[in-house]
Amino acid sequence: MATKAAKQEKKKRRDQPPPALRELLRIPGDGPVDLSSYDTRAIPSGPEDKAAGLAATARLAERLAGLQDRLYAASTAGGTRRLLLVLQGMDTSGKGGTVKHVIGHFNPAGCRVRAFKTPTAEERSHPFLWRVRRALPEPGEIGIFDRSHYEDVLITRVRELVPRRDLGRRYGQINLFEQSLADTGTTVVKVFLHIGYEEQRARLLARLDNPDKHWKFSPADIADRALWPAYREAYELALERCSTDAAPWYVVPADRKWYRNWVISTLLLEHLEALDPAYPKAGFDVEGARDKLLRMP
Amino acid sequence: MATKAAKQEKKKRRDQPPPALRELLRIPGDGPVDLSSYDTRAIPSGPEDKAAGLAATARLAERLAGLQDRLYAASTAGGTRRLLLVLQGMDTSGKGGTVKHVIGHFNPAGCRVRAFKTPTAEERSHPFLWRVRRALPEPGEIGIFDRSHYEDVLITRVRELVPRRDLGRRYGQINLFEQSLADTGTTVVKVFLHIGYEEQRARLLARLDNPDKHWKFSPADIADRALWPAYREAYELALERCSTDAAPWYVVPADRKWYRNWVISTLLLEHLEALDPAYPKAGFDVEGARDKLLRMP
Repeated sequence: MATKAAKQEKKKRRDQPPPALRELLRIPGDGPVDLSSYDTRAIPSGPEDKAAGLAATARLAERLAGLQDRLYAASTAGGTRRLLLVLQGMDTSGKGGTVKHVIGHFNPAGCRVRAFKTPTAEERSHPFLWRVRRALPEPGEIGIFDRSHYEDVLITRVRELVPRRDLGRRYGQINLFEQSLADTGTTVVKVFLHIGYEEQRARLLARLDNPDKHWKFSPADIADRALWPAYREAYELALERCSTDAAPWYVVPADRKWYRNWVISTLLLEHLEALDPAYPKAGFDVEGARDKLLRMP
Repeated sequence: MATKAAKQEKKKRRDQPPPALRELLRIPGDGPVDLSSYDTRAIPSGPEDKAAGLAATARLAERLAGLQDRLYAASTAGGTRRLLLVLQGMDTSGKGGTVKHVIGHFNPAGCRVRAFKTPTAEERSHPFLWRVRRALPEPGEIGIFDRSHYEDVLITRVRELVPRRDLGRRYGQINLFEQSLADTGTTVVKVFLHIGYEEQRARLLARLDNPDKHWKFSPADIADRALWPAYREAYELALERCSTDAAPWYVVPADRKWYRNWVISTLLLEHLEALDPAYPKAGFDVEGARDKLLRMP
């Protein structure tokens, strides 16, 4: 009988959906964050090897594209909902790779990708959120930020580019900004791509070894790498202070590219499924339109 | 001996590359255009059935992505070249399908897609090229216009939305504008998706038959369809007056979706290959950077 009970228990566990990734990976936002306690090679849920991961991600792609189509369709009938994916992480952590391999599965007509580089003179002449506001997704769209307003509390902090007092205010400004996005229909998904120090070394070396990738490398990458502990601290602070109910942070183990792609696809799926977008009903007489079409010469 | 000569001739023909699509499909721009002389189901070159067409398009996708990567990389070293694909055609002609199925093969990070709808109040308060200038691709990017400034000599002409005299000036203004794009590094590829009157009826009916597609239908589509001859005339005039060396028009037979996708992929390939973008050489000491990386703790 014990065996039967154990079998039933096992079956029950198997039939239960795994805990949502958004719960597993979310930064609670209720206390200090210690990134060293997050394993960059962890596989907390989902496929456990590369082949299974690639297959699972490919299966997700179709569902994601279907949800995107519904989200976009809903906006043509006045729906205001949209999604903003914010990608942050150290150099080589896979921000560009995520855009290529995950966002590449969506219909480009509904995507608005923006990479934030060193601010231009014009951008510097405005408050730090100015350039970000100009790149937000419209209703029905999926916006993707490769780097974001978080650079304004990361590199600016590490390299002391703004007075510490101004910096201190920015976390609150960011939270208010993101709350306003949520209030006006934007689902904000913030992803920290967490890679290890040795994995970064390997990826930078790989870029140096391939002349076709030299353009992706800059000597500044080495200078930034030398500041790794300061960056980690700046990230920990940003994750702690800006993981809110309106816009939580997710820490994604990013040493394995296939796993990173599966995780972000799944996070997007969970958020889009929660939105449950629906095709709008026809606002016209369908039968009448069909008759007219058939009767036209 | 005649047989041998014939065989050699046949081999020679087979080994010769087919005439470039850009030559085959280009509107010469040296006289009136009669769209009824262009078959919307024609297969002037390339794969002759759907299976072969899908396979050929998939093979092109990888080459296109590689060229896009080089184009983008070149821009990071000061390259100014970029490409703008302009898609025009009657309702259901496949503008959206082209974005999804052809542009979907590119890296979304380097694509800037813009669909032009009925002008907003702000857009109407500016000259007609204003909203177009704001959506142009940056260096290294591929821009895609789903409809464009050509609406300002198409629907505006058919529905008499602007005085005829203003309209007459616009062709020249467009040519000057496109010349300036070419002069500053933009390869302009203008595609007219040519579908037949009966094919449009079938596609509109298919939208009505599928509730998930009702959002793509508007009663205005029937009103526009009733003006088919006027639209054809307006298109003929735009193709005639605005097919220039700087920015030629291509007429793409669009009744078969798989063929349309192959043609546009091939047109993009021919233009990108002509640009021959190259990865920039490293502007830093590669060996020195490798040493530093290896010597870091």
